[in-house]
Amino acid sequence: MDIKSFVHKKALEAKEGAKVLAKASSKQKNSVLISMADALLKRAKELIAENKKDIKFAQDKGLSKALIDRLTLTDKRINEMAQGLKEVAALPDPVGEIVKMWQRPNGMTVGKMRVPIGVIGIIYESRPNVTADAASLCMKAGNSVLLRGGSEAINSNRAIVKVLRDVAKKEGLHEGVITFIDIPDRDAVMEMLKLEGIVDLIIPRGGEALIRAVTENSRIPVLKHYKGVCHVFVDRDADLKMAEEICFNAKVQRPGTCNAMETMLVDKKIAKIFLPVMVKRFKDAGVLIKGCNLSKKIVPSIEKVEDEDFYKEYLDLILNVKIVDGIEDAMEHIARYSSAHSDAIVTNDYAKAMRFLKEVDSSAVFVNASTRLNDGFQFGLGAEIGISTDKIHARGPMGLEELTCTKFIVFGNGQLRE
Amino acid sequence: MDIKSFVHKKALEAKEGAKVLAKASSKQKNSVLISMADALLKRAKELIAENKKDIKFAQDKGLSKALIDRLTLTDKRINEMAQGLKEVAALPDPVGEIVKMWQRPNGMTVGKMRVPIGVIGIIYESRPNVTADAASLCMKAGNSVLLRGGSEAINSNRAIVKVLRDVAKKEGLHEGVITFIDIPDRDAVMEMLKLEGIVDLIIPRGGEALIRAVTENSRIPVLKHYKGVCHVFVDRDADLKMAEEICFNAKVQRPGTCNAMETMLVDKKIAKIFLPVMVKRFKDAGVLIKGCNLSKKIVPSIEKVEDEDFYKEYLDLILNVKIVDGIEDAMEHIARYSSAHSDAIVTNDYAKAMRFLKEVDSSAVFVNASTRLNDGFQFGLGAEIGISTDKIHARGPMGLEELTCTKFIVFGNGQLRE
Repeated sequence: MDIKSFVHKKALEAKEGAKVLAKASSKQKNSVLISMADALLKRAKELIAENKKDIKFAQDKGLSKALIDRLTLTDKRINEMAQGLKEVAALPDPVGEIVKMWQRPNGMTVGKMRVPIGVIGIIYESRPNVTADAASLCMKAGNSVLLRGGSEAINSNRAIVKVLRDVAKKEGLHEGVITFIDIPDRDAVMEMLKLEGIVDLIIPRGGEALIRAVTENSRIPVLKHYKGVCHVFVDRDADLKMAEEICFNAKVQRPGTCNAMETMLVDKKIAKIFLPVMVKRFKDAGVLIKGCNLSKKIVPSIEKVEDEDFYKEYLDLILNVKIVDGIEDAMEHIARYSSAHSDAIVTNDYAKAMRFLKEVDSSAVFVNASTRLNDGFQFGLGAEIGISTDKIHARGPMGLEELTCTKFIVFGNGQLRE
Repeated sequence: MDIKSFVHKKALEAKEGAKVLAKASSKQKNSVLISMADALLKRAKELIAENKKDIKFAQDKGLSKALIDRLTLTDKRINEMAQGLKEVAALPDPVGEIVKMWQRPNGMTVGKMRVPIGVIGIIYESRPNVTADAASLCMKAGNSVLLRGGSEAINSNRAIVKVLRDVAKKEGLHEGVITFIDIPDRDAVMEMLKLEGIVDLIIPRGGEALIRAVTENSRIPVLKHYKGVCHVFVDRDADLKMAEEICFNAKVQRPGTCNAMETMLVDKKIAKIFLPVMVKRFKDAGVLIKGCNLSKKIVPSIEKVEDEDFYKEYLDLILNVKIVDGIEDAMEHIARYSSAHSDAIVTNDYAKAMRFLKEVDSSAVFVNASTRLNDGFQFGLGAEIGISTDKIHARGPMGLEELTCTKFIVFGNGQLRE
């Protein structure tokens, strides 16, 4: 069968799965998720054996140690995957929730009800645990998934999908609730992106190049996560000890993440007190600091920052520092350079806190908290399928609710259009 | 200037406009909308003079009378446009609304706040009133618009936009809140669809061909409105008099609209009583009826329906009739043929009503009310920019709320990521 027909067939299977899932009760979905978790544990050996094939292939290909580590399945990781499925089972079901309801003058009652989106196509890279995570979140929200993982993990992914599908079938759901396109060819992705009317949403997870390629070629709506160039602004009215802790946490706690701080903006009124202490603490933690001219005057030992640095997502122990002339200047810098991901202000001034919250146009805006908290678990969504930097449907962490849409429902008693 | 640079320049102007609008207060937005309404009335002669150019061109080109009628601006229509702006001014401002808010165990408060989307590109066809309608709705929701109207109305649209921009400038907003691409060339649309990162959302309004072309070529998210193939299912437990009124209204009140009924599904248990009466009433109103074999047995005078007819959006006094074996059969038919726009059940059976509401996957699902009520005004949204048949962001009528998104806001007191 050619690639086009193969992908089309898989997608139609996913559509059948979506129909079954849309009607499934919460109880049924939860029970299947728990059985899936048990099956992953029970069949761990099988998964590890298949995973070994991927690892061998990666080693032969000379892939980096870091990549091979991300690819590797261990008993511990399989256990975490299973635990993840159980946690999703324990979350409240968003489907069927009436978001609001109101009366019209003609006596009809109009409401908005949460409904599944349908078939969600997920295109992702190496880590095989994404297979179970993404499938379980979509399933709980009543959506089937059409998965397309990276070629490096193809054996592992195929094995995980087999386990999950076996359970779906055995428990009386449809196998099509989880379908997997096991063709490493890039053309398979391109065919997937043309399945308008069958696939309802595409979520690409991976590097910027993958996401750009998907966005440019998709006829299906895409929810995506571009880079995070995040800021913390230390206002003149900040509690400087708190500011120090927040900035340190935002940069150092896990620098390789999208919600880590890349640029620290410091109010000029407190720069002379704040900067030397802060820079010392960063330097002790191995952070390379690049500063504007003003900050270099205060702490001459730091490097010089270039304008293009302010656009960079370092994902590393590197930090830009800029001294700004108050909140206006800080918000202008953020509006220009931020990737609209996570931005924070540290201040004790009420008016400035409220202004920053309202005016900064990012997926999450923080007062007196670390940007590292922009995360589905931290926000209490239970789990997340990514952090959207899009401007429609959902911005920020996408949990179960964000994997649904709403439809209008009308309770009438004979209302007509006049 | 070449088309690409021209469109890019206009879009950047819109982006500047969006920044100003995002910060504007409700009071300021409302005052500008009211001044815009007044200016349209005051400068009606200017608008009508420009409109005459379009009409003359359309007549020379031999366009249809119906099209020329839709194109024509009269004092009455300008008055309606102005009235529309005032109504939008009177609606509640969605921007800044806190949709929900909750506490986390670490003491931080997380909320979701409604924010504008940014720059909305609207691609539409002949009717010039869309220019003012769409611009006012977007503006009220804090978004700037990049408009691209049909070439037939170019002089009228340019004149309307000029009036609105003059007011925006005079009242201290930015002219860029409303920008207009007055290049009739199709290439201008194609350039618009590439402005990812500047334009945040595209809404195409017009025929299916336009919408398909936009969807296939856009790198920007698109919210669209495909055809309406709507159903009314008359259940065996329906109040048959109510069913008759609802079916008649759904088909006849305005057959050329997307929410008019195209197929009537009748439970076989009541078909012999219901069909003859209903068909007579439809025939008296000039409706051509195409029925399945079973319905032809009951009313032999009707035409025979073909399977492909069930996919058709007639937009005319033509109706398919099918006799079904209960709600299961009806919902199966709807799942197969419906365009997921508006579908209704008429029944007095509680369980069937609730099942239909839950399981039918359409933008609006009705119990005991006409599908013709799927409309922003009828639902109380105040106004609408179209009816989305998409599965993400918004389904059904899109009012002000649907022209916004939400961001996360966090009130902390020093929270860090552990």
